Amino acid sequence: MSQFMNTREDLVNEAIDGILATSNGQLARLDGYPHIRVVYRTDRDKSKVALVSGGGAGHEPSHVGFVGEGMLTAAVAGGVFASPSVDAVLAGIMTVTGAAGCLLIVKNYTGDRLNFGLAAERARAFGLKIEMVIVDDDIALPDLPQARGVAGTLFVHKIAGALAAQGENLETVAEAAREVINGVVSIGMSLDTCTVPGSPKEDRIKPGMAELGLGIHGEAGVEQVAFSSAKEAIDRVATRLHHHTDDGPHVALLNNLGATTALEMSVLAHELTQSVLKDRLQWMVGPAPMMTSLDMHGFSVSLLPVTEFNKTALAAPVGPIAWPGFHPVSSLCITPLPDGLSPIDPTPSLNDDHATFLTRCCDILIKLESELNALDAKSGDGDTGSTLADAARALKGSLDRLPLADLTQLYRAIGLELSQTMGGSAGVLLAIFFAATGDASARGNDMVGALKAGVDRVREIGGANPGDRTMIDALLPALDNLSSGLASAAAAARKGADSTANITRARAGRASYLSAEQLLGHNDPGAEAIAQLFEQLVIGAKA
Amino acid sequence: MSQFMNTREDLVNEAIDGILATSNGQLARLDGYPHIRVVYRTDRDKSKVALVSGGGAGHEPSHVGFVGEGMLTAAVAGGVFASPSVDAVLAGIMTVTGAAGCLLIVKNYTGDRLNFGLAAERARAFGLKIEMVIVDDDIALPDLPQARGVAGTLFVHKIAGALAAQGENLETVAEAAREVINGVVSIGMSLDTCTVPGSPKEDRIKPGMAELGLGIHGEAGVEQVAFSSAKEAIDRVATRLHHHTDDGPHVALLNNLGATTALEMSVLAHELTQSVLKDRLQWMVGPAPMMTSLDMHGFSVSLLPVTEFNKTALAAPVGPIAWPGFHPVSSLCITPLPDGLSPIDPTPSLNDDHATFLTRCCDILIKLESELNALDAKSGDGDTGSTLADAARALKGSLDRLPLADLTQLYRAIGLELSQTMGGSAGVLLAIFFAATGDASARGNDMVGALKAGVDRVREIGGANPGDRTMIDALLPALDNLSSGLASAAAAARKGADSTANITRARAGRASYLSAEQLLGHNDPGAEAIAQLFEQLVIGAKA
Repeated sequence: MSQFMNTREDLVNEAIDGILATSNGQLARLDGYPHIRVVYRTDRDKSKVALVSGGGAGHEPSHVGFVGEGMLTAAVAGGVFASPSVDAVLAGIMTVTGAAGCLLIVKNYTGDRLNFGLAAERARAFGLKIEMVIVDDDIALPDLPQARGVAGTLFVHKIAGALAAQGENLETVAEAAREVINGVVSIGMSLDTCTVPGSPKEDRIKPGMAELGLGIHGEAGVEQVAFSSAKEAIDRVATRLHHHTDDGPHVALLNNLGATTALEMSVLAHELTQSVLKDRLQWMVGPAPMMTSLDMHGFSVSLLPVTEFNKTALAAPVGPIAWPGFHPVSSLCITPLPDGLSPIDPTPSLNDDHATFLTRCCDILIKLESELNALDAKSGDGDTGSTLADAARALKGSLDRLPLADLTQLYRAIGLELSQTMGGSAGVLLAIFFAATGDASARGNDMVGALKAGVDRVREIGGANPGDRTMIDALLPALDNLSSGLASAAAAARKGADSTANITRARAGRASYLSAEQLLGHNDPGAEAIAQLFEQLVIGAKA
Repeated sequence: MSQFMNTREDLVNEAIDGILATSNGQLARLDGYPHIRVVYRTDRDKSKVALVSGGGAGHEPSHVGFVGEGMLTAAVAGGVFASPSVDAVLAGIMTVTGAAGCLLIVKNYTGDRLNFGLAAERARAFGLKIEMVIVDDDIALPDLPQARGVAGTLFVHKIAGALAAQGENLETVAEAAREVINGVVSIGMSLDTCTVPGSPKEDRIKPGMAELGLGIHGEAGVEQVAFSSAKEAIDRVATRLHHHTDDGPHVALLNNLGATTALEMSVLAHELTQSVLKDRLQWMVGPAPMMTSLDMHGFSVSLLPVTEFNKTALAAPVGPIAWPGFHPVSSLCITPLPDGLSPIDPTPSLNDDHATFLTRCCDILIKLESELNALDAKSGDGDTGSTLADAARALKGSLDRLPLADLTQLYRAIGLELSQTMGGSAGVLLAIFFAATGDASARGNDMVGALKAGVDRVREIGGANPGDRTMIDALLPALDNLSSGLASAAAAARKGADSTANITRARAGRASYLSAEQLLGHNDPGAEAIAQLFEQLVIGAKA
């Protein structure tokens, strides 16, 4: 599978430079490429304890993403899933460590332990005060003598970081870190393995299966299970964690292992608040990618007991935007729907002129049904006639419910009636037309002005302009000429409708999917309907 | 492909509830499930212009994730890739809109235009002041009459949000939004399509290919190209954007379309700062997922001209953590490596006693080579003897370089020599042992105390405790008895080494991978080496 990188060798280095370019000068790196990758805070205060962490790359935003105020002072990155060298770690330590000393936060992998360990010795030989803690929060493999360090590491960064920021000494910071490590437990689950850049993807986890307790380097999990639902996935993870924690208040860190969508992560968060852990779960960090495994489609949950002491440290604000905050889990705030979603039925009223005119328009459209259908069959799906005729029949049937005496209310009522009767875009557009016309009428526009305001709104919403081969091409000229009389409007509508036969590039509506050959020579059926409506109204007015 | 969800019907609703549970009471939703999904700020101020956006789900964190101080007042979510209903939009508008009115921010898709448009009409009929803007930033398809709305929408949220927060009126906010829409251009590229929950994944994009200009709903792009590198991917995108922008200063929004790893996104950020756009590119938002397409392995870049006016709005702090900030693109801060990474060679000095003792130890280990190899073959890879003998030969060869007269410096020098000579974990552990011993010696410990401090450090770093079937099982009892004389130490080492033959569960080192049957009855070769070393030293001392 391809990846957005250049070469495997440059991947981590270029990624770090990408981060630095937008760090606003907050982050610097040492001039040690290609092998020494150390990122540190430019605003470090050497009178405070330095926090240095790191390890293989591929766990982003860990660890470079957590360098900043209130968290790490420096991060040392290896290659993808490869421990950084002793020299790299030593360079990191020496760059940021002053008289207050340095705490190394190391995940429990042999390479990291050894390289950070030897770097610590070398730094000590320079007279620097160094403490090192080893995070082993993974509870996936109960028989593994050395539990792995996974996403629980973030709690160490956060709590030790808060203490270091407030000026606590090295012993206090290290002791707090060890306390976190003693308390934190984590386990992960994934629906797929990760793609290591430059290597083919292992297809260990078959579709429909999930792996419980897998590591952050694609190491196989403790067991494969059939996957059924988010609820069941959380149930499995939560049950394991439940066994390893007591009844006190806890914070859960819900970590995206890489490629799980935000939708899924939020569903998992929801399930976690409903799980067997619900009574213990009083705060949450995430969901967010914090300790990833490249593009792994999975998640992990880490649990830490919360005391008054670490609560303050967890809640302290930090610089790195990758830290998603420490939030109480609360009951949902759900409020009633507002009134007025169902429009109030208009109060019927009588007006013979309006009733007659409306009925005449409807009869005209009903009579045009098959002719317009036939025309539409040449440039669309052949239902324009039926759509309009159905609407007209519905409108005729609703005459005794309409507020015929009040033109403003009548426009709105027609819009409402049509939006409830007609499906699809056409119904919505006609509803918008009549609603906007009513709106303009309410603002004091005369009939022509109101109708034009309706057209403007339809143009805005529908995105159709004159010349786009739509109903607009007849309707707009008709309205422009209506003040000169119905006959003048009808003539303009006819001219507009006929012009659509030469428009071979529809820019809106279904006809925009057709070719020029298919469109040439046929009027747009919507525009034709408008032209015929006006023409028939002229005949009716004369009769 | 499986997803962490329960049912497709509940997916979006449960995800929203997951977000609400950790919103710290900042977000509420309307009681309109299953179909009305409206999330709004509980701290909304109805005297200010409300900003309502939304559309289909699947673009998280858009839009619910951007509800909060300085951005959206409410978000209305449809199903995955499906527009919300008119009622849902209307409910959102009516919940948050006061006398100052409401701006609807709509991406240019027919469903969204119509449903938001009709909802706007209905809201206007209630006397509410509503403006609507339609975002059409996608430049992928030059011939498309209606450009799509994609990640550039975020600029509208941010800038209109900042103006609304500072109390500007609806006309001003809407005008600023339209200004952004006029200026912003976007284009995306992906290595794969997205996985729509409950549907099989389309395999339109073959391995090794990339699609340029695809939409955020998996719509096909304008062209497929062979994918070669991150640089070339950015070049293609940047070249398109270059044609659509002028020479002035711009901000780029680098959007993760879903499943692209943080490593890749940072590489793309790096390439963007090196691209044809580099002189125009003065600020960046991201890289971060902002307008995603589920799990799409792609990215998009949106460019907006920056003026003094919108700079302030872009930089204004906001509540939603999904907004990754507006950062200047700056040159990298790269500083020199610290001194002292290469340890200073110790100054050689002479001491006959130390030279003799050291030589004797080395000779003993060299003589044991084949015996220890044979023992190791039963529980490891048969090279313990050679590893130790090689180290001993190297140490003998370095005698004239060693600071023999100064015990503290001598320990450190031996550690350094061994770490440079021996590969792998063993070399690092011995280097740590001698370095820590030297460190303790420098702090005034006597020889036994210093050596014990060395062992303690090795235990800490290596994770091996007594009883774990390692060298420690002989070394620790030997040191515990060394103050009573060499013979006593040797006897204790022998007892310890022999005890390892009964340890059938190794908890550290390579032997931890072997079964009980394979281990039973054989001494650990490291422990045996220590025992024989002490035993031979006793014989030598007597001779």
